[in-house]
Amino acid sequence: MSEEVGVIYVGNKPVSSYVLAAVTQFTAGANRVVLKARGRAISRAVDAAELVRRFLGDKVKYEKIEIGSEKVGEPGKERTVSTIEIVLAKAE
Amino acid sequence: MSEEVGVIYVGNKPVSSYVLAAVTQFTAGANRVVLKARGRAISRAVDAAELVRRFLGDKVKYEKIEIGSEKVGEPGKERTVSTIEIVLAKAE
Repeated sequence: MSEEVGVIYVGNKPVSSYVLAAVTQFTAGANRVVLKARGRAISRAVDAAELVRRFLGDKVKYEKIEIGSEKVGEPGKERTVSTIEIVLAKAE
Repeated sequence: MSEEVGVIYVGNKPVSSYVLAAVTQFTAGANRVVLKARGRAISRAVDAAELVRRFLGDKVKYEKIEIGSEKVGEPGKERTVSTIEIVLAKAE
């Protein structure tokens, strides 16, 4: 079975641009779209995921939601930020 | 089996106060602690959950992470906000 996964890094752009990117990837044939975000952008990733769900309705579902931590910054100046990974999958 | 669940609403206080609240509830005998947040506080809830996990180590795990939406505000002025619910459970 072929597997197309789109990955979208959610940053500081307006939520709508991530929603559009996700919907476009599904329309282009992706079976899964992963929204990834760090730090304060986590809230925005959740907003985007919820909007995609509302936009595509029953056609997509949350397959996995994971949170974690990552070290960012230069050596010696590292700090830990929280991360989220939201996997949206086409409902079969 | 008795079941003690603590619920913590994450808002605008410093992350540390939610971490302390969660750790205190586990120490007081809770088997599960649920961190709930809406809108921009979602990032803070994830930060708090990750800090609790780092603080308590193998003793707790993520049992469930759910995201959704909620309507807030007075009738006629309602708006939709995203929500998160992070369930931390004592590892058996």
